[in-house]
This record gives sequence, C-alpha cells and structure tokens, in this order.
Amino acid sequence: MMHQALALARRASQVGEVPVGAVVAWRDRIIGKGYNQTLALNDPTAHAEMIAITAASQQLGSRYLNECTLYVTLEPCLMCAGACYWAMLSRVVYAAPDEKNGFSKLGIPPHCCFHPKTCVQHGLLAAEASALLKDFFKKLRTR
Amino acid sequence: MMHQALALARRASQVGEVPVGAVVAWRDRIIGKGYNQTLALNDPTAHAEMIAITAASQQLGSRYLNECTLYVTLEPCLMCAGACYWAMLSRVVYAAPDEKNGFSKLGIPPHCCFHPKTCVQHGLLAAEASALLKDFFKKLRTR
Repeated sequence: MMHQALALARRASQVGEVPVGAVVAWRDRIIGKGYNQTLALNDPTAHAEMIAITAASQQLGSRYLNECTLYVTLEPCLMCAGACYWAMLSRVVYAAPDEKNGFSKLGIPPHCCFHPKTCVQHGLLAAEASALLKDFFKKLRTR
Repeated sequence: MMHQALALARRASQVGEVPVGAVVAWRDRIIGKGYNQTLALNDPTAHAEMIAITAASQQLGSRYLNECTLYVTLEPCLMCAGACYWAMLSRVVYAAPDEKNGFSKLGIPPHCCFHPKTCVQHGLLAAEASALLKDFFKKLRTR
C-alpha cells in the first residue's frame, strides 16, 4: 500500500507538485487515491490525504472510514489529521516525518488530533519518501 | 458578512445538515460561500469553511487568501483551522464557540493552529448562531 502511495507521490512530482501521495485501503483493496494537487487545482485544501479520503467516502458510500487504513508518504498536517478525525479512520500510517508542517509540531499526542480510536503509525518506507521530497526541493532550488 | 454566513447555515439546516455557514470576503465582496454538506456530498471533509475556501481560491485565482476574511458561524475544527493556515487568511471571525470539536479544545493558542499572521476573532452574532445549532439538535432528538 505504501508503495502505491509512493507511486502517487512520484506522479505529483512529475507535474511539479510537492510529492506526497496517499491511498485509503479497505480489506486489502484500495478504495481511494490521491496526490498533492494544490497547484493544479489552485486549492489550498487539495492535499493527497484529503483527495484520498473524499474518494474513499464516495467509493464506500459512507463518510465514516472506520474499517479503513490511510497510507500517506508524509506526516499529515493539522488539516489532514482533522480530516482523518472526521473520517474516523481505523489506522493512519505515514512514511516520512514533517517537522515543519506535521501535526506533531504542536507537541500534542496523536489521539488529540486524530480520532482517539485511530491507530497512528509511522516510518514505513520513510527513507524513500524523504528522498523523493529532498530531491524535489533540490531540483526546485536549482531551477 | 456574518449575516450572510448565518443565512447559509439556515440553508444547511433546511436540508438536514448541521447548520454551519461560511463566507470568504475580499475587499467587502463575498468571493466564496459554503455551508456544511457532509451528508449531501457524503464527504467528511465537506465543512462550510472548506467549501468557502476552495470557492474563494477559484474565484480569486490564487490558493493564498492573505487579503481575505473568513466569516463562519461556528468555531472551526482542527481540519478547518488547518485549511485556514494553508490559505494564509488575513482574518478569521467565528460566531459561536464549539467546545466539543473546535480547535481551541486542544488548549493551544490560535496562532499555533492558524497562520501566525491570521487575526482570529470570535463572538460576532454568537447568540444567533448558537440558537440555530441548539434548535437543530433539539428537533433532531425529538424526531
């Protein structure tokens, strides 16, 4: 699943968006996908997680994703953590940490941002996800 | 502007949605409107503020709303506060407090959730906004 999220992050990178990708999985099936599209959609809310959560809700026919896991290549920001809260996700797995904009910058425990029933894990394929981001910003600076 | 947001909240109530409304104003003009549509759109992210911010970005042709004010009838949740952060709103004015789901439940100051440059104010038409919500939930319980 995280490999799929990374593939989506690469797609974002190819079109000049900050490379973050996300998938929502339900019983080993992907029911929602997204990659960061804030530039293309000209929308500050068009983060990978938001798009994947909305897509999954449509696919499942429910705004509660309490049997689903979100895999995302970067630590969710406050907005996306808040969206996970409303979706009541069973589990959130993120790859790389985001010291600047991740939810954890507030120093409050995950269960205060996410739903208390959501299991939050991190570190899966973190090196790959971080490398993708570093490479993207390095190329951006060079240009 | 808050009266316009309240009118949108009433529209939400009329279609069975939790009555929250929001407008984004730029130089005394409304450039984005939204009301809570989580049920109608089957989307946990479809809060009034999210819809108004996305609409305003489209209208202004910018994902930064740093010259804009968001008026919303209820204290923004973490997700919506996070969206305000990314939109870099100049000002956020909310009417009623939301003790259960408002950003302030975390006990952290507004400038940590919203953008540090965003001025956050509250209390404008709070009684009207609260009454609308109380009435909605009272009717819901009676049914």
